[in-house]
Amino acid sequence: MKFFPAFALGLSSLLAAAHAEPVAAQITQVAGLAANAARVAAANKAAGISRIDPTFWWVGMKNPKLQLLVHGPGIGASQVSLNYAGVTLEGTQKLDNPNYLVINLNVSAATKPGKLALTFSGPKKTTYQYELRARSTDKNRVQGINSSDFIYFLMPDRFSNGDPKNDVVKGTRVNHIARDSMYARHGGDLKGIENHFDYLKSMGVTAIWPTPVVENDMPKASYHGYALTDYYAVDPRYGSNEEYVQFVQHAHQQGLKVIHDVVLNHMGSYNYLQLDPPTKDWVHQWPTFTRSNYNSQALNDPYRAQYDSKLYNDGWFDTTMPDLNQSNPLVANYIIQNFIWWIEYTGLDGYRIDTYPYSDTKFLMDWNTALLNEYPQLHMFGEAWVGSTAQQAFFARNIFQPVNGYKSNLPGVLDFQSNAAIQDALRKENPNVSRLYDALQGDWMYEDATRNVVFMDNHDMSRIYSVIGEDLDRLKMGFAWLLTTRGIPQLYYGTEILMKNFSNPDGLVRADFPGGFSGDKSNKFTAAGRNAQENEAFTYVSKLGTYRKSHPVLQTGKLMQFIPNDGVYTYFRYNDQGQTVMVMMNSNKQEKTIDGARFAERTNGFTSAQEVVTGATVSSLKSFKIPGQTAWVLELHK
Amino acid sequence: MKFFPAFALGLSSLLAAAHAEPVAAQITQVAGLAANAARVAAANKAAGISRIDPTFWWVGMKNPKLQLLVHGPGIGASQVSLNYAGVTLEGTQKLDNPNYLVINLNVSAATKPGKLALTFSGPKKTTYQYELRARSTDKNRVQGINSSDFIYFLMPDRFSNGDPKNDVVKGTRVNHIARDSMYARHGGDLKGIENHFDYLKSMGVTAIWPTPVVENDMPKASYHGYALTDYYAVDPRYGSNEEYVQFVQHAHQQGLKVIHDVVLNHMGSYNYLQLDPPTKDWVHQWPTFTRSNYNSQALNDPYRAQYDSKLYNDGWFDTTMPDLNQSNPLVANYIIQNFIWWIEYTGLDGYRIDTYPYSDTKFLMDWNTALLNEYPQLHMFGEAWVGSTAQQAFFARNIFQPVNGYKSNLPGVLDFQSNAAIQDALRKENPNVSRLYDALQGDWMYEDATRNVVFMDNHDMSRIYSVIGEDLDRLKMGFAWLLTTRGIPQLYYGTEILMKNFSNPDGLVRADFPGGFSGDKSNKFTAAGRNAQENEAFTYVSKLGTYRKSHPVLQTGKLMQFIPNDGVYTYFRYNDQGQTVMVMMNSNKQEKTIDGARFAERTNGFTSAQEVVTGATVSSLKSFKIPGQTAWVLELHK
Repeated sequence: MKFFPAFALGLSSLLAAAHAEPVAAQITQVAGLAANAARVAAANKAAGISRIDPTFWWVGMKNPKLQLLVHGPGIGASQVSLNYAGVTLEGTQKLDNPNYLVINLNVSAATKPGKLALTFSGPKKTTYQYELRARSTDKNRVQGINSSDFIYFLMPDRFSNGDPKNDVVKGTRVNHIARDSMYARHGGDLKGIENHFDYLKSMGVTAIWPTPVVENDMPKASYHGYALTDYYAVDPRYGSNEEYVQFVQHAHQQGLKVIHDVVLNHMGSYNYLQLDPPTKDWVHQWPTFTRSNYNSQALNDPYRAQYDSKLYNDGWFDTTMPDLNQSNPLVANYIIQNFIWWIEYTGLDGYRIDTYPYSDTKFLMDWNTALLNEYPQLHMFGEAWVGSTAQQAFFARNIFQPVNGYKSNLPGVLDFQSNAAIQDALRKENPNVSRLYDALQGDWMYEDATRNVVFMDNHDMSRIYSVIGEDLDRLKMGFAWLLTTRGIPQLYYGTEILMKNFSNPDGLVRADFPGGFSGDKSNKFTAAGRNAQENEAFTYVSKLGTYRKSHPVLQTGKLMQFIPNDGVYTYFRYNDQGQTVMVMMNSNKQEKTIDGARFAERTNGFTSAQEVVTGATVSSLKSFKIPGQTAWVLELHK
Repeated sequence: MKFFPAFALGLSSLLAAAHAEPVAAQITQVAGLAANAARVAAANKAAGISRIDPTFWWVGMKNPKLQLLVHGPGIGASQVSLNYAGVTLEGTQKLDNPNYLVINLNVSAATKPGKLALTFSGPKKTTYQYELRARSTDKNRVQGINSSDFIYFLMPDRFSNGDPKNDVVKGTRVNHIARDSMYARHGGDLKGIENHFDYLKSMGVTAIWPTPVVENDMPKASYHGYALTDYYAVDPRYGSNEEYVQFVQHAHQQGLKVIHDVVLNHMGSYNYLQLDPPTKDWVHQWPTFTRSNYNSQALNDPYRAQYDSKLYNDGWFDTTMPDLNQSNPLVANYIIQNFIWWIEYTGLDGYRIDTYPYSDTKFLMDWNTALLNEYPQLHMFGEAWVGSTAQQAFFARNIFQPVNGYKSNLPGVLDFQSNAAIQDALRKENPNVSRLYDALQGDWMYEDATRNVVFMDNHDMSRIYSVIGEDLDRLKMGFAWLLTTRGIPQLYYGTEILMKNFSNPDGLVRADFPGGFSGDKSNKFTAAGRNAQENEAFTYVSKLGTYRKSHPVLQTGKLMQFIPNDGVYTYFRYNDQGQTVMVMMNSNKQEKTIDGARFAERTNGFTSAQEVVTGATVSSLKSFKIPGQTAWVLELHK
């Protein structure tokens, strides 16, 4: 893949995938019973039905349709009947695999919650009590994520171990934790995150984004969460389903929102749907293992070869990650229902969608439409790790006419363009602040770029502190930008305490948060556990983060940016309530004197300013003398 | 301006402008009589009217409106009357300057050609015989420029001197030629170009694009043509107006089209409209000389400061180039009529528009609409030297919703994205052919990218042969790409005979074509005058250019490109007539063996191929062994 620029890869689990074990390659790509299928089936043999997905549902959904995927040995030969007021059986569907049966229901608005008895007749007679719950009536339960938020992004396995009892769970394919291995499980969990809600709140954080918490019962590298093995289960090493529901409730009670990390494109090879595939085409089939070319450009290149576009969309992400065939309506519907289920079940606030452009485009439009139909306030933002603003905006709501029938209806994206820009702007040699200007200038292509998530680094890239040469001054410039630019800021866990390392080759960018695990020699959740530099960084984020939280101008204020001049980038956030914050970033090593006349259209009416973090006063706006490698966040005063 | 990347500058006359003389700065930016205005006026004092623009017009135009700008001492105080069947006087308009009068006419469809007597009464009585000509009835006269063409771009002053009598023209501000100075006139002219029509045709060239041929009666650096001083006159150092009309006629007779190079944004400071400005706001006024920031991003940045966008649009290109205020309807109409005039007068085939994004956006839309209304077959392509495909497509017909009321209706642009890409692809070290793929991939944003003009270099940038380290093998790869990729290829004069040099600091990229001037020690228009390498380059262009001319598949065939792999870029041109040309470009120094299976969707049905330039046969399409630094242009055979 050396012919692709790094940005084209765009895969959240790339780092881990590169280390995936060959054992997984034993899972055949063609439909067939794998060794573990028998295990799953055997466990439920008594009932005759091993599972029905969705595992339960609700009455009162806007869409009355409900499609059940029933799994059980030989269940496909059964007939189904029911008798439940409001519920209509619209039909059943046999699949290639006799162990599956699809039941299409219509759950009318008048339906009451209760147990819907599904009677299976034929070779195997059984009755399944399918639960229909009452839909939540709390219209504010799902809050959405917007530019008023400040997201903390963490890996639950690596943040904090709050419940040692779930470190190793009997019946899973990993029987140990090993904190000295970057590809093993370390023991972090939901309880560990919850234990540090106060820590997060002290920085002004308002939303938590953990890497996927769903079951990843893979034999190797299961910690990252992007190889889900059960669409309806939280990974037991993080907690139970009910504990996750409580986690969201507790977070909400504390003023913290929760973002659920989602993979639509692929699943883990030990998912039961791969071990015992419902249809031959549930995942994309290839004669031999065939990897995606990881290049979304093949999707909308008007001159694309079918060879390239098919490889992009249908090629597998990795040997351990079968690529879902979302053009099969059963697959599409299965995934759509699943992610409606998670919202109604937990009350989560937003979805971050992994490897967004790899999915079938029609499916993506349908998925978004279905979710927003039920939860208009939900926020969704996708990972589209591409090389230009146009290509990135192509995957968000934009001002483009449809291309090949595709017009994205995704509210937001992770902003990889400003991410690349901030890394260039903070470089030690030849820093380029103009790229920050350029990155935002392209926002004319979005319907609303404030829905995008801005960030300096994440779990797939080298940590920003290492990228910029472990320079605290420049990192503070980065924090200033992150918390004052347009969009929804996202901080990757530990950046505030100067966690470092490069993404290659050792994966240490996913290291444990010091103090999150018993026996850690220092606890950087506390000031006492941090050294002076770490406290300086933490304090900077805290001061600016809490200022942001209490000052709407930095959340929803308009943005005005001036073309960078001589290595100095100046922009403003302002609103109709008379609040104005001026940000001036001097990327030079030397102090610069800036004539304030140029900014008159924003500074008129103001006479002085106070720097938000240091409290320093700027007594005149006519001229600015800004030190080298400094960003000022100036609250303007009349 | 060091804070802008080079690509952001985008100014055809930048090189020359940088050397413009301070003398021009004497021309005041505020309205007022300059020293030379008296000279102009005095010369026409007898008539009382120094000029009327348009200098003449036609009956039979689709738009019956005609606005005359009358110039003469004190003419503004006059009343006007006329009596001519079909022509209605719709009113007159006084301007700030009493030396001007605007006359609004309606020339109905029934009007016959003839002399329209305009009777001026009041303080100065006079009659002006305004000529109304018959519009050409030849519907194929204006041919347009399209992807079947191959453009040769040259600077008339530097190509060939065919008429020594017009080297120095009495009454102009330059009284000498000096071939040893890059900023002086060298003596080239229209006749010089015409003398080499056969040379151009021998390369398969079908269209000539000279830098502007209009009058540039500037005291310094007048040779480049981008500082026009008379909208209605050919520069006498190139020939008379009538000679230009004949030039176009002769070109057409020889199967060569003509592109007229146009500047809409500014004019030369010695234009009579600047020396004696009709209105105070004919050009953008600033308290002191104020230069554009040369950054079109300020135009559509949703967060732009008015300071930046105004500076971009209204700032002057240079001290010698006053910036036209096209938001004044009189200015807009003056320019629109002028460029309709040139088409009807000469039968030119296309307009290349300099510094396109610098003009007022509403004006640009109106200008295009007006011209295409009269000449639907006309081609127009703009210079938008910007840093991304999206920003470039913003100035062409595109798939974007309007931004701030602007949706470009310009048919094509000069493709600076593929230009940057080919330079990267031909680099000696770390060549990047993927950029060629990327540049075309972005074509999804255009309404029709085949209308764009592709090129390797031009008069504003270092010559490609120098850029790539004077390596003929790599230059031939460039020729192969230029003549087989999508769009309209443009060759900058002399590249075919290995002319070289860097754009900075000495301007030698605008050097004379050897053999174009009497006394030249060699004549590279002939094989005998070229050395072996030059002949190899010329022969390569000739063979491929003439092949292209006779093979529609390379003109209008569809394009399919494959994601570059291991430094090899492969694409196809193909059509419904069964013609297929495969281009394989190996940028590596080493030979590469390429598995042909990947290309099956385009090679199926073919068994062998012939390389178009060398005639070499490729006997199997199953595998390709392509030498390093080579581009094959393969005609596929059944």
